Amino acid sequence: MASVRHRLLLLVTLLAIPASLSSQSVIQMPRKRHRFAASDDSLYCDSWRFSIETNDAGTWSNIPSRCVRFVQDYMTGDRYRSDMASVANYSLSFAKGVTMGGDGKDAWVFDIDETLLSNLAYYQAHGFGSETFNEAFFDEWVDLAEAPALPASLNLYKELEQLGFKMFLLTGRSEHQRNATARNLLYAGYNNWERLLLRGPSDQGTPATVYKSQKRSDLINEGYRIHGSSGDQWSDLIGFAIAQRSFKLPNPMYYIA
Amino acid sequence: MASVRHRLLLLVTLLAIPASLSSQSVIQMPRKRHRFAASDDSLYCDSWRFSIETNDAGTWSNIPSRCVRFVQDYMTGDRYRSDMASVANYSLSFAKGVTMGGDGKDAWVFDIDETLLSNLAYYQAHGFGSETFNEAFFDEWVDLAEAPALPASLNLYKELEQLGFKMFLLTGRSEHQRNATARNLLYAGYNNWERLLLRGPSDQGTPATVYKSQKRSDLINEGYRIHGSSGDQWSDLIGFAIAQRSFKLPNPMYYIA
Repeated sequence: MASVRHRLLLLVTLLAIPASLSSQSVIQMPRKRHRFAASDDSLYCDSWRFSIETNDAGTWSNIPSRCVRFVQDYMTGDRYRSDMASVANYSLSFAKGVTMGGDGKDAWVFDIDETLLSNLAYYQAHGFGSETFNEAFFDEWVDLAEAPALPASLNLYKELEQLGFKMFLLTGRSEHQRNATARNLLYAGYNNWERLLLRGPSDQGTPATVYKSQKRSDLINEGYRIHGSSGDQWSDLIGFAIAQRSFKLPNPMYYIA
Repeated sequence: MASVRHRLLLLVTLLAIPASLSSQSVIQMPRKRHRFAASDDSLYCDSWRFSIETNDAGTWSNIPSRCVRFVQDYMTGDRYRSDMASVANYSLSFAKGVTMGGDGKDAWVFDIDETLLSNLAYYQAHGFGSETFNEAFFDEWVDLAEAPALPASLNLYKELEQLGFKMFLLTGRSEHQRNATARNLLYAGYNNWERLLLRGPSDQGTPATVYKSQKRSDLINEGYRIHGSSGDQWSDLIGFAIAQRSFKLPNPMYYIA
């Protein structure tokens, strides 16, 4: 009886709700038992994300199978965009405080994939990082040259350009992908980079951290001051010849050692 | 009319829901306008947390005023404990793979505050990091020597001990707090550390990153191999003489440069 009365009370409440608040914002569908499991998954996956984004997890390959939905929600919802915007804001705020040399040697290093360009459409079709990476498939996607810009990064890029930074794009993509990469960058709205650095034959097989450190070191030897560096992978940022400030962008889909 | 029909449909749905699923799990109370603001805060604060935990934000002082409730919920709810447990699991899993020298020179470096010991009770009474840090008040709290262990860290500590690691506790606390600190560690369940390293007179005024790097460097010069290092601050982990693997523990309450 109590539960019937309870439901009647709910009906009255419901009728009192303005129409604009009805539907999605008021009613949730009945929760199935697996909702509790989903809530455990959410906590687990949130903590997994903490551990990978801080590099505590070290090298990892596929995302945990129980986190596929979590990663999908994160990447396609507000959180990814919000996290990207937050990092871009901190990057710009640092950049604005840099004392520029005015000699054309003030540099900023950007990674490309999941930093300037979004491959979300590709990963959406490949399980959001739950499938084993297939280089041949990904190369086909790269050749299409239609990855869109990550809006927060495009905005940051243009602001940095205005401030007088020279942009160095340092990617793990191979030299044979230079044309497709440059075409894609232009298509996405990026212009006027100082140099596009890709893996040449002698860089093949070198761990990303070492390859990127060497390239940064070369720039420093040329007299560039690397004030900032932006990348979605720790291997974009650590090692040697590191930037004055490094900015780790979110990426819960894959890890490059 | 459509909205009335819509609501009638909802009533039918509601009546079809088993009584056990009614109330909280099915109906949310009408959302007030400030709920939207709260939801914005949650997204904002989640992204703020991403930026501080990855060190993208650089040096910061107080937590944003709109994130006090967020930090409170995080620290006192499941998420902090879950994140701590996740990092401890990755730390232990790395430690188990270390090839031990068996010469007593395999070392692990732990920070103390918010790493081995929890000062949550103190910060709970001081706005969860929203109040400006008061050294005199905090020193009184340290003298009480009753900060509890962080369970995931205590468990990790004991496991590492079993594996044969020598534990070095490297803290920004001052030499004059040695007795209270040791008393507190024992009270919390920590035993058998190899050395407790505090800031001596000559370390005063040195940035935490430099002070901690120097101490790690001294250990390396003594022949220790620092396999792992755990700390809630980036200044516990970066600089020079860094550990083979560094583990960043969560702490959205304060930042030490």
